[in-house]
Amino acid sequence: MYGVVPDARVAGFPLRRYKGRPLVAILEVYMEIQVGVLGATGFTGGELVGLLLRHPQAKIAWLSSESQPGTAYGKVYPQYLGRLSAESEKMRSFEEVKSTVPDVVFSCLPHGASAACAAPFLANGKTIVIDLSADFRLKDVAAFKKAYGHEHPLPALLPESHYGLCEIHGAAIKGARLIANPGCYPTSALLALFPLLREGIVSPDGIIIDAKSGVSGAGKKATDTTHYVNANESVAAYGVGDKHRHRWEIQEQLSLAAGRGVELLFTPHLMPMERGILSTIYCDLVPGRDGAAAEACLKAQYAESDFVRLRDEFPRTGDVKHTNLCHIKVYQPAESRKLIIVSVIDNMVKGASGQALQNMNLAFGLSARLGLG
Amino acid sequence: MYGVVPDARVAGFPLRRYKGRPLVAILEVYMEIQVGVLGATGFTGGELVGLLLRHPQAKIAWLSSESQPGTAYGKVYPQYLGRLSAESEKMRSFEEVKSTVPDVVFSCLPHGASAACAAPFLANGKTIVIDLSADFRLKDVAAFKKAYGHEHPLPALLPESHYGLCEIHGAAIKGARLIANPGCYPTSALLALFPLLREGIVSPDGIIIDAKSGVSGAGKKATDTTHYVNANESVAAYGVGDKHRHRWEIQEQLSLAAGRGVELLFTPHLMPMERGILSTIYCDLVPGRDGAAAEACLKAQYAESDFVRLRDEFPRTGDVKHTNLCHIKVYQPAESRKLIIVSVIDNMVKGASGQALQNMNLAFGLSARLGLG
Amino acid sequence: MYGVVPDARVAGFPLRRYKGRPLVAILEVYMEIQVGVLGATGFTGGELVGLLLRHPQAKIAWLSSESQPGTAYGKVYPQYLGRLSAESEKMRSFEEVKSTVPDVVFSCLPHGASAACAAPFLANGKTIVIDLSADFRLKDVAAFKKAYGHEHPLPALLPESHYGLCEIHGAAIKGARLIANPGCYPTSALLALFPLLREGIVSPDGIIIDAKSGVSGAGKKATDTTHYVNANESVAAYGVGDKHRHRWEIQEQLSLAAGRGVELLFTPHLMPMERGILSTIYCDLVPGRDGAAAEACLKAQYAESDFVRLRDEFPRTGDVKHTNLCHIKVYQPAESRKLIIVSVIDNMVKGASGQALQNMNLAFGLSARLGLG
Amino acid sequence: MYGVVPDARVAGFPLRRYKGRPLVAILEVYMEIQVGVLGATGFTGGELVGLLLRHPQAKIAWLSSESQPGTAYGKVYPQYLGRLSAESEKMRSFEEVKSTVPDVVFSCLPHGASAACAAPFLANGKTIVIDLSADFRLKDVAAFKKAYGHEHPLPALLPESHYGLCEIHGAAIKGARLIANPGCYPTSALLALFPLLREGIVSPDGIIIDAKSGVSGAGKKATDTTHYVNANESVAAYGVGDKHRHRWEIQEQLSLAAGRGVELLFTPHLMPMERGILSTIYCDLVPGRDGAAAEACLKAQYAESDFVRLRDEFPRTGDVKHTNLCHIKVYQPAESRKLIIVSVIDNMVKGASGQALQNMNLAFGLSARLGLG
Repeated sequence: MYGVVPDARVAGFPLRRYKGRPLVAILEVYMEIQVGVLGATGFTGGELVGLLLRHPQAKIAWLSSESQPGTAYGKVYPQYLGRLSAESEKMRSFEEVKSTVPDVVFSCLPHGASAACAAPFLANGKTIVIDLSADFRLKDVAAFKKAYGHEHPLPALLPESHYGLCEIHGAAIKGARLIANPGCYPTSALLALFPLLREGIVSPDGIIIDAKSGVSGAGKKATDTTHYVNANESVAAYGVGDKHRHRWEIQEQLSLAAGRGVELLFTPHLMPMERGILSTIYCDLVPGRDGAAAEACLKAQYAESDFVRLRDEFPRTGDVKHTNLCHIKVYQPAESRKLIIVSVIDNMVKGASGQALQNMNLAFGLSARLGLG
Repeated sequence: MYGVVPDARVAGFPLRRYKGRPLVAILEVYMEIQVGVLGATGFTGGELVGLLLRHPQAKIAWLSSESQPGTAYGKVYPQYLGRLSAESEKMRSFEEVKSTVPDVVFSCLPHGASAACAAPFLANGKTIVIDLSADFRLKDVAAFKKAYGHEHPLPALLPESHYGLCEIHGAAIKGARLIANPGCYPTSALLALFPLLREGIVSPDGIIIDAKSGVSGAGKKATDTTHYVNANESVAAYGVGDKHRHRWEIQEQLSLAAGRGVELLFTPHLMPMERGILSTIYCDLVPGRDGAAAEACLKAQYAESDFVRLRDEFPRTGDVKHTNLCHIKVYQPAESRKLIIVSVIDNMVKGASGQALQNMNLAFGLSARLGLG
Repeated sequence: MYGVVPDARVAGFPLRRYKGRPLVAILEVYMEIQVGVLGATGFTGGELVGLLLRHPQAKIAWLSSESQPGTAYGKVYPQYLGRLSAESEKMRSFEEVKSTVPDVVFSCLPHGASAACAAPFLANGKTIVIDLSADFRLKDVAAFKKAYGHEHPLPALLPESHYGLCEIHGAAIKGARLIANPGCYPTSALLALFPLLREGIVSPDGIIIDAKSGVSGAGKKATDTTHYVNANESVAAYGVGDKHRHRWEIQEQLSLAAGRGVELLFTPHLMPMERGILSTIYCDLVPGRDGAAAEACLKAQYAESDFVRLRDEFPRTGDVKHTNLCHIKVYQPAESRKLIIVSVIDNMVKGASGQALQNMNLAFGLSARLGLG
Repeated sequence: MYGVVPDARVAGFPLRRYKGRPLVAILEVYMEIQVGVLGATGFTGGELVGLLLRHPQAKIAWLSSESQPGTAYGKVYPQYLGRLSAESEKMRSFEEVKSTVPDVVFSCLPHGASAACAAPFLANGKTIVIDLSADFRLKDVAAFKKAYGHEHPLPALLPESHYGLCEIHGAAIKGARLIANPGCYPTSALLALFPLLREGIVSPDGIIIDAKSGVSGAGKKATDTTHYVNANESVAAYGVGDKHRHRWEIQEQLSLAAGRGVELLFTPHLMPMERGILSTIYCDLVPGRDGAAAEACLKAQYAESDFVRLRDEFPRTGDVKHTNLCHIKVYQPAESRKLIIVSVIDNMVKGASGQALQNMNLAFGLSARLGLG
């Protein structure tokens, strides 16, 4: 039922009878995974804590906050009132936790700030760091500067980092020490496009990604953009075409898939809803390839996946809300050489904290579904 | 069709024929009402400007903003791009406008700041001031201090002020120089309760007002409360029972109606919607009175009103969205001496800018409906 | 202030003084326009009635409903309780109204049913018919059949019909007897693209229109799709690529603009909001043309328009909510030959009932803004 | 970590070392609980299936649907695509399942229909039935008829039924064969009021419950009320005062608590959100009792509860969204003998499927949190 550490023995056998039916005994041998969460008060932190509380092996060692150290976590997220241990309930500062050695640290800090806080845990030689910020997602520091407007804070660590798109780079993640958790938009776009570019089914030129996201993607800071009266009952494009920083992340990964540079337009939109991303992707089929080939390629890629599914109908973001799922539909319009792909995720789960936990599961050799199912 | 200044002559007569049918000529004689708006960038200012642009006699002379003087109004509210005159498009500071003499000034400034800015216009002896803030709503300065936490800024002006609940105090408003535009919750509650208390139909003791408001009532400032992710898909009570400042305003007016002090509990709630207030009111019928008497009283009170209507069904806030209407339903449950009243308004229109414009119409002797639909 | 019938004399002159200031008298000569509304209970009917009540010359003669004849209109839309005349308050059946001769009839009936109901009014030789359904939008009956799945109900009337995209075909509308009011998606897309194709600035090949609409576009019928729990907090694509019937309407008009057949993909999406359409349009700049040329072309096209504006920032649908505005932004990404255009309207106003009223204004030679401002 | 069947042995002991840290082995002995779900396509069914899939001991044996037998469940709820076993994926008719003997059957059928379908499972002598409909909630068949408009379908089974308000009647549920899962509004109101009436802290007279619910409470049927455009951006009262059927359920339980008949007004409201109930309760403190006593009483009642918590601040429904929690705040306004209580739950979880699963846990002697935490 639950994953176990790789080399432990598991035994399932009938034990005795209860109300006339055989009981099943399962010897579950597991390691308690000590977890620290940096920057736990943000939206991804809040989501992650909820997932960790349901994970059968994770144990929250501490939660950190630079803005509210000393505050009880339940003051920030009342749903966790009374559900955390005495040690983890009160948030600590980075100073207080930087010398601890948990099995895994999730960094939910903002990009730019995250790299430096991840460093001491990497230096201890034991802790695995899963960084939900963008600091280690791009290998290309020039692209990083273009996207984020400043030099990379710790380029020396980049060679160690693995881009944690689980269904694509899962093999590399097993055993990784530093995992860059993918951005929300990139997760939705790459799960649809990466295999198709790798297999030469769609062209690396002229890709258009028209993405729609819920407001939680804009973060916890109260701004005019996130004010209810502005965000509600309105749709807006932003970072149009070439301006959103996730464009660089998508571009680097798709270039990796294609084996050459890709050209793309990426237009994100803000939707009046809390969570969910729907990416509508327009691309050109390579001569000789068609929609059926594209669908077969993705079906093969995700045949064993617990989370990514090819759909017969076009998926709604509501279909995957509060799950770690990614649902995809491919469609070749009649008399057209274009391929249209619709891919949906929950930006807070598969697009952030859920995939981070999936990365933890992979890194520890556990079942990908553990705590996510 | 449109109201005219009181003593102007109006003539309607067949003129000649157009496409075979008689044309009607109406000589509309009207005064162009020069309008200034203090604090135009807030939500009530934005709503008011839209209403003024539709009003056939109002002409916006200037818009002021302390936070963004010099900025074009269309930068703040793009729906007004290109719809304002050259002089009014660029917002001015209070310093720049305080010596002007428009026919009417609407103050959309925050309470506390509003009174001082209204003063110079009152001093010029010509301008009518309609204050959308709370500064002149309470005659009782002790209650003001309890509600707003500081001394009244300009008590000397209080005797001049008139509480602008149009359907109740309309006669006094005609000719007033300083009109305190009622709060949103009070408008919804008082239109339902004032006549019933005045006529001795319900008891002044034990009144419970359970009110539900959209998020625009919380104002334009971006806060944790107004963050989309917090306000969306959630309902919350606040200022419970005796803590919300509108409680004092309701209490003063209802005491005036009852001719003695009333006792009430007022619990506002924040709803996941932009606009609208629904007040569910529970009160005791005076012995010998019943629900039918209550309904008859309110029907008589509002028989001539353009905006307040008694309903056969329980009204929804959606029924009055973007209108200056107030819909009310009274109900006496079987075998009960309680009266339940549901009253709905649009908090931004009847609860703020619409009623302010209605007050302007009344003050200038125009039809109450002018520009309001 | 208000438009007048074309050849009427208008006089504005100082009359006398009121409170020491000159009054202005305006002789407004206008024809009362008798209006009938077929199928008034749907969403476009409800919106239209609200606009008509504010229009200074329109007078509602009757409202018809096949599903609820005899019912008071205020039972369906409580916001209109007590605001309609005695004759128009009670809805009539088509049978009861088909022999009347109002100046204008708006048909808000479903496509397929609308053409037959419009016919008797066209036959009377006097009434102007503005059809909000799709029945007369396509000149190409083969395309009509592909889009709507059945033969055109009244092809004989097609030569008489004018496609009522006001800012593009306004000259033809003046004097028209049968006006096909454009669809909501087409209005948003065509106002952005029509001039650019006509002027040869963008290529007629490879156009992609990724459109996002509020739920009111799905109509008043209660279905699984429009159930709050399904529509809320979810985004979905539908009619992807080549399947939505508005695709044919856009295609016919754009081909007219380009002088040759265009190739396009059109993907509508359902957003969790009541109203609003945002179209994100991707197209190829013709060699030698650039984003600046596109912007200049649109600015010139709409220089005199009351409703269509070019924006410096990307517009939100919230910017045009409850207005007849269309806001457009064009953008050429760096180092790209693509043009991205974002166009927003309120689907219920500019995309339906507002544009219908604008068409009435044009047909009667009135100011386009009358009742829409 | 997980609950176990009552008399099984559990052993936790250090086993060996993994990466230098001790592993912990836990022998979990559990019974696989075979589960059938009647009427699985409704909202409560959909929610319940998601919870069951996360429950470590529950195994879905079958899902039934009268409207769509033979259909794959993933067609109805795409989030469950590929997550159900081959046998349970395809929904069956009642006829096909009525002779099966699962350990537990949840009935998500509508009231009226549920009782008859529950009967054969009760008759088999083994299956525990948890009925999410209202059929077995009221012991008083006269009240049932008043509330539901028809005679009770199976009064003979009523003596066997237990009202499954877990935190109040938990002791009786352990061992029950027929559990009537409480209604959503009653759960929210009763958890706040039951202990206070039982302990004589508040008066049984004059209780007012003003409740606010999300739209999922209105069920899956597409109606005018649940149409997005009507439900969105609007608040409405319904079943005001004495008309809603949950009023009878609250009344019977509170009378049980008070040891005499209680008098109450209950006014539910529909909120523009998917899920959540907030009840604002107004009642009179018994002489000699105060708010502190009320708080102490509730704290004592729920000291051991996994799900019900007393809050220092007023709770939002957002605080308990997608959880089985109930958060409560009590408040006695200054100089008042009234007590105001705010109680929030997720109507789909604690108010329906979550509490149903909690009842299953209690009935089988498992930890209440199992699968709910």
